[in-house]
Amino acid sequence: MPGVNVPSTSHRVAIQGEHGSFSEEAARRLLGRRVQVTCCATFPEAFQQLRSGRARRLVVPVENTLAGSVHENYDLLVEHGFHAEAELDLRIRHALIAPRGVRLDAVKFVYSHPVALAQCRKFFAKHPRLKAVADYDTAGSVKRIVAEGRRDAAAIAGPFAAAVYKARILLRNLEDHPGNFTRFLVIRRDRAARPGPDCDKTSIVFATKNIPGALFRCLAAFALRDINLTKLESRPWHGRPFEYLFYLDFIGRPDRAPGRAALAQLGEYTSSVRILGCYPRHR
Amino acid sequence: MPGVNVPSTSHRVAIQGEHGSFSEEAARRLLGRRVQVTCCATFPEAFQQLRSGRARRLVVPVENTLAGSVHENYDLLVEHGFHAEAELDLRIRHALIAPRGVRLDAVKFVYSHPVALAQCRKFFAKHPRLKAVADYDTAGSVKRIVAEGRRDAAAIAGPFAAAVYKARILLRNLEDHPGNFTRFLVIRRDRAARPGPDCDKTSIVFATKNIPGALFRCLAAFALRDINLTKLESRPWHGRPFEYLFYLDFIGRPDRAPGRAALAQLGEYTSSVRILGCYPRHR
Repeated sequence: MPGVNVPSTSHRVAIQGEHGSFSEEAARRLLGRRVQVTCCATFPEAFQQLRSGRARRLVVPVENTLAGSVHENYDLLVEHGFHAEAELDLRIRHALIAPRGVRLDAVKFVYSHPVALAQCRKFFAKHPRLKAVADYDTAGSVKRIVAEGRRDAAAIAGPFAAAVYKARILLRNLEDHPGNFTRFLVIRRDRAARPGPDCDKTSIVFATKNIPGALFRCLAAFALRDINLTKLESRPWHGRPFEYLFYLDFIGRPDRAPGRAALAQLGEYTSSVRILGCYPRHR
Repeated sequence: MPGVNVPSTSHRVAIQGEHGSFSEEAARRLLGRRVQVTCCATFPEAFQQLRSGRARRLVVPVENTLAGSVHENYDLLVEHGFHAEAELDLRIRHALIAPRGVRLDAVKFVYSHPVALAQCRKFFAKHPRLKAVADYDTAGSVKRIVAEGRRDAAAIAGPFAAAVYKARILLRNLEDHPGNFTRFLVIRRDRAARPGPDCDKTSIVFATKNIPGALFRCLAAFALRDINLTKLESRPWHGRPFEYLFYLDFIGRPDRAPGRAALAQLGEYTSSVRILGCYPRHR
C-alpha cells in the first residue's frame, strides 16, 4: 500500500514500540518504506520526539476493534496541540515466529505480549504442549528469542517482525478473531495551512455539561445536516463531575459546508470544541 | 469499603491477573474480603470459569479513564449472555514495592507492566539512576522480585500487591495522573429474577445501520424522557460495513418508567438491543 496522502519522505518518524512492531508497520505503510523510525518506550516519549523536532511525524494507535480507544494518545494529542493528517486501519495478524533453523516440533515455549497470547486461544488449545509465556512486547519477544539464540522457543508477533529480525514464520493467522484492526494516525506538530483537496474526514473533541439534553443537541448539529458520524465516544472527566468529553469523527471538513455550519452550531452548545485533524478517510 | 449490594459470600470468583492485582482488589472490595479468588491468565479463561460453574462470579475491568474501554470484555459478556450485577470505580494508585529489607538507595531496577511504567514518568525523571524494566504484569512483577529474592530491584504495582506478597512499600502515589480510574463489573451467569430495589443504572448494547439519523433517533428515546446517560460509545463492526454497535449506560431501570418506555422506543429503531445488566450505581 502506498503512502496515504502524506508526501513520501525520508523524514524521521517516532513510534512507541520496538522495531518490527505493528506501529512501525503502520508508519511504513503510511509514510513509505524509506522513512527513518525512532522507537520509543512510551507514548509520551514518542510525542516528545515530535515536540522537540527530533521527529517530523509521529504514528500512534488510537483505537483497536477489540481493545477500544487509546485514551492516552487522545490526551497527548490535545495536550500538545498537535494535528492528525492521515489514518490507517491495520489488520492485526499474529504469526508464530522462530529463530532460523528452529522447527515447529522443537518449540516448547511461546513468548508474546499477554494481549496477543489471549488473542490466539484456539491455537494454544490445538497445540497443548506449547507453553505460553508472557513478555512485554510482541516484536520485542521476537527480538529476544533471536538475540538469545533460543532453540526451544518461538514468539507471536506480526509477520513484519520476522522480516525485521531475520527470523522464520512457522505459522500464520494464529488470531482467533479476524476482525482485529488497529487504527493509526499520522500526527504532525503544526497545522497544515488548510486541508488538502482529498481530506474528507474530521476528528474533533468537545466538552459538555449535563449530558442528556446537551449531547442530543450536539448531535442535532450533525444529524439535521445529514452528516455521517464514524465515531462517537463519551468519556467522563474524573475530578470534574457532570462534565463529559466526547470524541467525534465525521465525514466532512471544517472549512466547507455542511461541516463548517455544524461546527458553528456545536460551538453554541459546548464549553470547548477542538479540531484534532482533517484528513483523507482510509478506505 | 463494604461489598456493594452483592451478598457477602465465600463463593469463588474468577479474575484475570495475578494475586495482588487491581482486579483482585476490586473483587475483594465488591464481594468481601473472604471471597476465594481464581487467577486466570486471560479474560476468556476467566469467563470460562463462570460458564463451567467453577466460579460463581467474575470481576473484570470494562473501562479505564486513560486507556479506554476494554472491548474484549464487552464482547465476552455478550457472547456468553452473562449479566452485570454491580460496578466499582477503582482509583489506580502505583506504589514502589521491594522485597523486605531492600532500601530505596539499593534499588537499581524497577519492574512493571509497560502501561504502569508509562504512567509514572515524573517519578523516573526525578530518579534518573533507576532503570525501568518492562514485565508482563504489575502484581506479577512484585511476585517475581520477591520469589527471586532480588536485593537490587523494586516493582511498581498497587499497594495491595505489597500486602499479598509480604513486600514493603518504599514510596506511594507514583502515578503522574490522579484521574486514573478503572471501572470493574461483577458478572453472574444467570439473570436475577428482577433487579434489586437499589438498582438504578442499566447497561445496554444495541446495533444500528446508517449512523447519522439512526443514532440521533435512538438518543431521542432517552433525551425526550430526561434520562441521564453516563456512557455512550460507538464501535464499528469490521466485516459489517455501515453497521455500528453502541454501548450505552443510563440512569434508570428496564422494568420501570421512564427506562422501560425508552427501551421500547429504542427497539423500534434498532436491529438488536441487549440489556447487559441493571445494578446499583457506584457513588
